[in-house]
Amino acid sequence: MRLLCCLLLMTITGNSFSQTYQPEWQSLDKRETPGWWTDAKFGIFIHWGLYSVPAYAPVNEVEGVYEKYAEHYENRLIQGNKLFSAHHRKFYGEQFKYSDFAPMFKAEYFKADEWAELFVKSGAKYVVLTSKHHDGFCLWPSAESNKWNSVDVGPRRDIAGDLTNAVKAKGLKMGFYYSLLEWTNPLYKPQTIDSYVESHMLPQMKDLVNRYKPEVIFSDGEWDYESGKLKSTKFLSWLYNESAVKNTVVVNDRWGKETRSKHGGYYTTEYELVHDAKGIGEKAEHPWEESRGIGTSYGFNRFETLDHYFSSKQLVDLLIDKVSNGGNLLLNIGPDANGLIPVIMQERLLDMGSWLKVNGEAIYGTSSWANRPQHSKGQTIFYTQKGKDLYVICTKWPETDLLISKVKKAGKVSLLGSGASVKSVIKGDQLRIQAPTLNPATMPCEHAWVFKIECFN
Amino acid sequence: MRLLCCLLLMTITGNSFSQTYQPEWQSLDKRETPGWWTDAKFGIFIHWGLYSVPAYAPVNEVEGVYEKYAEHYENRLIQGNKLFSAHHRKFYGEQFKYSDFAPMFKAEYFKADEWAELFVKSGAKYVVLTSKHHDGFCLWPSAESNKWNSVDVGPRRDIAGDLTNAVKAKGLKMGFYYSLLEWTNPLYKPQTIDSYVESHMLPQMKDLVNRYKPEVIFSDGEWDYESGKLKSTKFLSWLYNESAVKNTVVVNDRWGKETRSKHGGYYTTEYELVHDAKGIGEKAEHPWEESRGIGTSYGFNRFETLDHYFSSKQLVDLLIDKVSNGGNLLLNIGPDANGLIPVIMQERLLDMGSWLKVNGEAIYGTSSWANRPQHSKGQTIFYTQKGKDLYVICTKWPETDLLISKVKKAGKVSLLGSGASVKSVIKGDQLRIQAPTLNPATMPCEHAWVFKIECFN
Amino acid sequence: MRLLCCLLLMTITGNSFSQTYQPEWQSLDKRETPGWWTDAKFGIFIHWGLYSVPAYAPVNEVEGVYEKYAEHYENRLIQGNKLFSAHHRKFYGEQFKYSDFAPMFKAEYFKADEWAELFVKSGAKYVVLTSKHHDGFCLWPSAESNKWNSVDVGPRRDIAGDLTNAVKAKGLKMGFYYSLLEWTNPLYKPQTIDSYVESHMLPQMKDLVNRYKPEVIFSDGEWDYESGKLKSTKFLSWLYNESAVKNTVVVNDRWGKETRSKHGGYYTTEYELVHDAKGIGEKAEHPWEESRGIGTSYGFNRFETLDHYFSSKQLVDLLIDKVSNGGNLLLNIGPDANGLIPVIMQERLLDMGSWLKVNGEAIYGTSSWANRPQHSKGQTIFYTQKGKDLYVICTKWPETDLLISKVKKAGKVSLLGSGASVKSVIKGDQLRIQAPTLNPATMPCEHAWVFKIECFN
Amino acid sequence: MRLLCCLLLMTITGNSFSQTYQPEWQSLDKRETPGWWTDAKFGIFIHWGLYSVPAYAPVNEVEGVYEKYAEHYENRLIQGNKLFSAHHRKFYGEQFKYSDFAPMFKAEYFKADEWAELFVKSGAKYVVLTSKHHDGFCLWPSAESNKWNSVDVGPRRDIAGDLTNAVKAKGLKMGFYYSLLEWTNPLYKPQTIDSYVESHMLPQMKDLVNRYKPEVIFSDGEWDYESGKLKSTKFLSWLYNESAVKNTVVVNDRWGKETRSKHGGYYTTEYELVHDAKGIGEKAEHPWEESRGIGTSYGFNRFETLDHYFSSKQLVDLLIDKVSNGGNLLLNIGPDANGLIPVIMQERLLDMGSWLKVNGEAIYGTSSWANRPQHSKGQTIFYTQKGKDLYVICTKWPETDLLISKVKKAGKVSLLGSGASVKSVIKGDQLRIQAPTLNPATMPCEHAWVFKIECFN
Repeated sequence: MRLLCCLLLMTITGNSFSQTYQPEWQSLDKRETPGWWTDAKFGIFIHWGLYSVPAYAPVNEVEGVYEKYAEHYENRLIQGNKLFSAHHRKFYGEQFKYSDFAPMFKAEYFKADEWAELFVKSGAKYVVLTSKHHDGFCLWPSAESNKWNSVDVGPRRDIAGDLTNAVKAKGLKMGFYYSLLEWTNPLYKPQTIDSYVESHMLPQMKDLVNRYKPEVIFSDGEWDYESGKLKSTKFLSWLYNESAVKNTVVVNDRWGKETRSKHGGYYTTEYELVHDAKGIGEKAEHPWEESRGIGTSYGFNRFETLDHYFSSKQLVDLLIDKVSNGGNLLLNIGPDANGLIPVIMQERLLDMGSWLKVNGEAIYGTSSWANRPQHSKGQTIFYTQKGKDLYVICTKWPETDLLISKVKKAGKVSLLGSGASVKSVIKGDQLRIQAPTLNPATMPCEHAWVFKIECFN
Repeated sequence: MRLLCCLLLMTITGNSFSQTYQPEWQSLDKRETPGWWTDAKFGIFIHWGLYSVPAYAPVNEVEGVYEKYAEHYENRLIQGNKLFSAHHRKFYGEQFKYSDFAPMFKAEYFKADEWAELFVKSGAKYVVLTSKHHDGFCLWPSAESNKWNSVDVGPRRDIAGDLTNAVKAKGLKMGFYYSLLEWTNPLYKPQTIDSYVESHMLPQMKDLVNRYKPEVIFSDGEWDYESGKLKSTKFLSWLYNESAVKNTVVVNDRWGKETRSKHGGYYTTEYELVHDAKGIGEKAEHPWEESRGIGTSYGFNRFETLDHYFSSKQLVDLLIDKVSNGGNLLLNIGPDANGLIPVIMQERLLDMGSWLKVNGEAIYGTSSWANRPQHSKGQTIFYTQKGKDLYVICTKWPETDLLISKVKKAGKVSLLGSGASVKSVIKGDQLRIQAPTLNPATMPCEHAWVFKIECFN
Repeated sequence: MRLLCCLLLMTITGNSFSQTYQPEWQSLDKRETPGWWTDAKFGIFIHWGLYSVPAYAPVNEVEGVYEKYAEHYENRLIQGNKLFSAHHRKFYGEQFKYSDFAPMFKAEYFKADEWAELFVKSGAKYVVLTSKHHDGFCLWPSAESNKWNSVDVGPRRDIAGDLTNAVKAKGLKMGFYYSLLEWTNPLYKPQTIDSYVESHMLPQMKDLVNRYKPEVIFSDGEWDYESGKLKSTKFLSWLYNESAVKNTVVVNDRWGKETRSKHGGYYTTEYELVHDAKGIGEKAEHPWEESRGIGTSYGFNRFETLDHYFSSKQLVDLLIDKVSNGGNLLLNIGPDANGLIPVIMQERLLDMGSWLKVNGEAIYGTSSWANRPQHSKGQTIFYTQKGKDLYVICTKWPETDLLISKVKKAGKVSLLGSGASVKSVIKGDQLRIQAPTLNPATMPCEHAWVFKIECFN
Repeated sequence: MRLLCCLLLMTITGNSFSQTYQPEWQSLDKRETPGWWTDAKFGIFIHWGLYSVPAYAPVNEVEGVYEKYAEHYENRLIQGNKLFSAHHRKFYGEQFKYSDFAPMFKAEYFKADEWAELFVKSGAKYVVLTSKHHDGFCLWPSAESNKWNSVDVGPRRDIAGDLTNAVKAKGLKMGFYYSLLEWTNPLYKPQTIDSYVESHMLPQMKDLVNRYKPEVIFSDGEWDYESGKLKSTKFLSWLYNESAVKNTVVVNDRWGKETRSKHGGYYTTEYELVHDAKGIGEKAEHPWEESRGIGTSYGFNRFETLDHYFSSKQLVDLLIDKVSNGGNLLLNIGPDANGLIPVIMQERLLDMGSWLKVNGEAIYGTSSWANRPQHSKGQTIFYTQKGKDLYVICTKWPETDLLISKVKKAGKVSLLGSGASVKSVIKGDQLRIQAPTLNPATMPCEHAWVFKIECFN
């Protein structure tokens, strides 16, 4: 009977999105990821909060990947991590609590318009801001987090709102990261988790959606409880059925300890850690996204030196690698506590933009090429496809001829951004391309070069 | 049928307190004020919180009584009061919000034991601390006020708990002031008041009672909503029927906009403002209590000079006046933001103690004398009674004979604290007492002197 | 030839002050202490500076008298004193240096006029402010102490100047305390002491005199070097011969390690420590002055409780004791770092004023009575004399007749402030006075009472 | 006779540096600039001080070149500059004085060794630190600047000393910038300038030399007084004759309002402003040095974005331009107030180092080529010479043959860093070089390429 109703509804509206989703994974997982997101490929992630004040994680010692995350500062102190504790004691003193960073998170030089302008120039198509991280501090005036948000203390501004307005005005999509867990919320414990979810977490999430109409929700901190306990399907069915963004919103896969790479929207990897045996990052069928910082942390780590940052070359290569394998790249920046984006990050984003300006058609709106070779380490040739065109992306200049298997015909072959003629020939199911002779003065771009093969199939 | 049950219950337990109260004023108002409180006469009120940081109210300009209250600082800024705003702008700046006082409220020198010791020496029998004032800041780790309490920010201590332990250890009763309203709680508004009451206010009040077992609850901030909206009778029936302090707790009359001097426990006056036509403060039948600061404010006002403080003489007279008219005195002190009690306040309390050490028997456990003359301004002779003894309290040394009407017999007449013999004689229904000749070197005490008339009725 | 000129000059001007003093003690010591000072009897000392921020000295532990001085905070840290160091580490941290108190010494509520008004009401006739204490921090814009004075950091005001103007406007005399030594001045050491004295210390002292024309200079910190090294006689000869205050200025005896109670102006005692075998404080021939705080410290010690403060009664008795033995009392107050005078200190000063209002004629302008009995502990009867009148000051109300030896005649005998007739009779060289019968309502004052005997010699 | 002694001394020591210089320009100007400096070519300038706290200069408005200098913050406030004043008022408030930045200049993360390591990697050969800028704040414990130096307030460290040790340990030369003027020193005014120079400035300069033995002294702030008033020749004759660095120290030309490009050591340009008609920066005979920041300011300006920074390409070109015209480049960095060098600056320095690693032999120890063409804007071919080798430095890859006039013979011609063979031919007095065919994968370096012509003369 229920099914019937749905079918009926679909018939009437003629819009597959207006389908009524049930608060069950079986139903919710049927929703398709909206196309704007799979076409977008490149987004900017922003980790910004109280942890941007100490802006510390150890850079020289290695004790595991999470040690590198400056945004985990509070929890490292709670856990008594030696490096974090020693740093804290030395520079802030025994008496100084994590919450004492709140008044120091001033964000006084934050200019949302300038940020948005930079994001546009980077070539990114969407932006995801940490509306609330694991410390529970909200970047919007959440009634459920009275006195522990950016309007009541610290910045005295609705950061989420200001950035949403600026980002949307520039034509980008806006989204939010939201942590389901809170390290120090007294209600976040097994005895009172229901009260936490009902009176705190769900009202906050709905408030975020209602106020700002975000088109990405990147939930996180899902590992302590099953999605049933967290009432995630209840939230998602509301989001998909009733919210103002029901037709366009994209969500990820972090909704309960059992959901990653299984349920929800797109799957997620993080610093190339694959959370599931299906091999995300290689040939996943399902939409997926890699997120990582330019350096080794999401939240700003002021102690990172140039050694810790990916070069522009590495970032361009990373984008190519992910996109050619069907994924998106959500590249993170960590503004400082005053609201300024470190110039090295500006440079990296602008370099991405410069490369994309020349080569963007090989990225946006493409899909992975079904006949691409097995992904391998050290690989320097990548492929994307869009309609009848195949893009061959070389992260190293080809000193010898390019040989591309499983291509039986080819129209015009060109080097993006260059007027130089490119010689090519088909032999059997192999296309041979000879790179033109160029020098630094005539190169169309730095870092990676794209040969476009028209009408290849 | 209900009545029958009650009677039955009373019969079984033999304890009038074990009666089951209904959540209605008609039932609740029947409860008698526990005797420990009516005997105690003198308590210490403590206003302490974020407002102790600016510690400001205007002292030279008069714009109404509330202008004198330093604890109203936040609201004065909200209202745009000119004096408060000018002070704030000048000394803290435009950008500085009230909540920025939180990290400055350090209470670092607060020693609960030393406070309690001082209170004992003052002769007070109970202590009432502002667990939460109108700014919503809690002096205990309230889960409902996460990050806005003295454990999460500022002092980093459970002030309510520490003081409760110290006060009880010295044999005094402990109680709490609690504000029903919160100026800046986003839920405290007509549309969401139910949610405020159910998810925030009532849980906080029960938490306070369950944790600390206070024997006085001085609620306040009741003027915006009727008691029905605030569910006050629900709370009180729980308090009287089920709480750990159901037999000993005392409450006041501030439970909704219609309740003052009508419902609840004892009636309240404040800086001698009478809130009801019944003439509290004169010959009230119902238990009542006057509260006021030593100076003109409850919260510490660092700008008060000696002119603004009551002298020890004035305070002794005040106590005598209230007690002789059937009331209690809840004398307020305002510690500073560092946790120190200003020495002038220490001196006043110790002077009270010195006087009570000699004359306490004329205060504690007494009642007003039914035949006392009409209360009048400038009055210098007051009366209290206990069993068969009448106490005649002279706030001015009697230079001529004392004439006391409506006393037809008298046993021994003596001057408390003095071995000097006191001559007296009955003539009709009038007792004539001749004060002995004394000089500064032989006076039993300063400020006021008590003649005790034994077996006067 | 020079001597002749001097004599000539004296003859012409007819003013003994215009004598030319030589920069030698033999010459300087001949100068008489100006009469305004010996008549004044009662002055206010003010210790105010960076040490008013921590405002700490141990109050419960006794490790010697200097331990009580909050103004010695910096030096206690330098010396590694356990109590001071523990306090500092606990409340300020290891990294926090004494100089970090400078920006916290804000003096933002300092109102010179209100201070001066209070001093007038106390009955004091002169005021002495710490222009610079041992920490070298100046309360005036000293060019020699660039960036280490109250105009460059902290208050941002010329405190010395503002107070001088206010005090003089009320008709009181103004003076300065000045420390010859500086704990942390890198030039204050044997190798460079000459440079310190010539380029730093002497220019500062002259600057103080030239700018503010103080009439008291209370130098201190003289114990490390002999007066020759410190060039004290050079300064004093300039002060006595050339300065704008040469006729009226009064100085003390602290000008080099060998000078106390030997050279300079009036002799000094401090918390009744006698620095010399001559027995200052008993029957000194030479003008002298006792200084002390109301509590146990000069600089504000916020940890003193009422126990540590002299009562008003004790202070009145102290003044009587000193004056009756030929001395002055320089009673110290310690304002807080915000510029407010603790109310307990206000009360003490106003109580002094109340007593002096009734009994001032027995203090101001008097001298000790040559025939007074030997000073003894527990003494309750004191004497002063002015012209033909003898004042008998009773710090305890005389319950039996007063017997005054060595008085052979007596005119009218009265109780100051009272209209009561006082009976008296001469028998031999003894005067017998019978105190009138009074009670609290008819007493002329509290604390101490004065019988005036006219025409007693 | 004196001359004879000098000659004698020179004869004995055989060292031209041991000559006795007279305190006159005529004599001092004869001293040759030590060869280590003319060979070094590339140094690091460091502007670091209180101005690094606000780290502000306007970036979008243009009101003249000096407006860009963040280190002029204090003076801009003194002058009432609208942009600086508005910024200061908004972010620090009216009450906040420049000296209030002192406690905020913490330098807590400053690691001298890491800085020095970075400088080595940049290819620089000497380092010049602002020991004291115009605000008078010293980065060493100057006795003449008691309480206004980095040991007494702020960092609590001898920054000059720590950096000197680290820099020298890495084999680089260390030097100091020193400002002759001080904006707010009360003695720095015409009436007391002699006292300022004798008791403050000269002792400081000698103290710097004696303590740290710097080999560069970059004086500045010389424009208010003539060098005679500033006693500059006195200092220099001491430096050249008696100091521990008399043989190796290098100084600049800023010693009095009349000296720039006339007297002292090497001449200076700044952001390519030529201070003298002789055309420094083009074909100067005299040693000279250009200094500038990577961005538009010397002191850190946190508001500069990538637009304001020179790219690595621009910096490499700058170095080539200056060196090929006989100058040195003193490239400035502005560490932040915490002691960290912004990563963008690290990247620039390391990029310089990468280029120099390949091409350093065309820079270090070279001189300008006498036959180089007239300097012109847009020039992309530069020359340096060392012994028999000529270096042709192309800041743009030569797409056509290079034609080099006035070269009549040529040995081997090679491309630095590349094994590719380079074809060349002499025709008359012209050398023709054909650049080899290379692509991004085979390029020896980025930014600029050097052809080395051996045995060219």
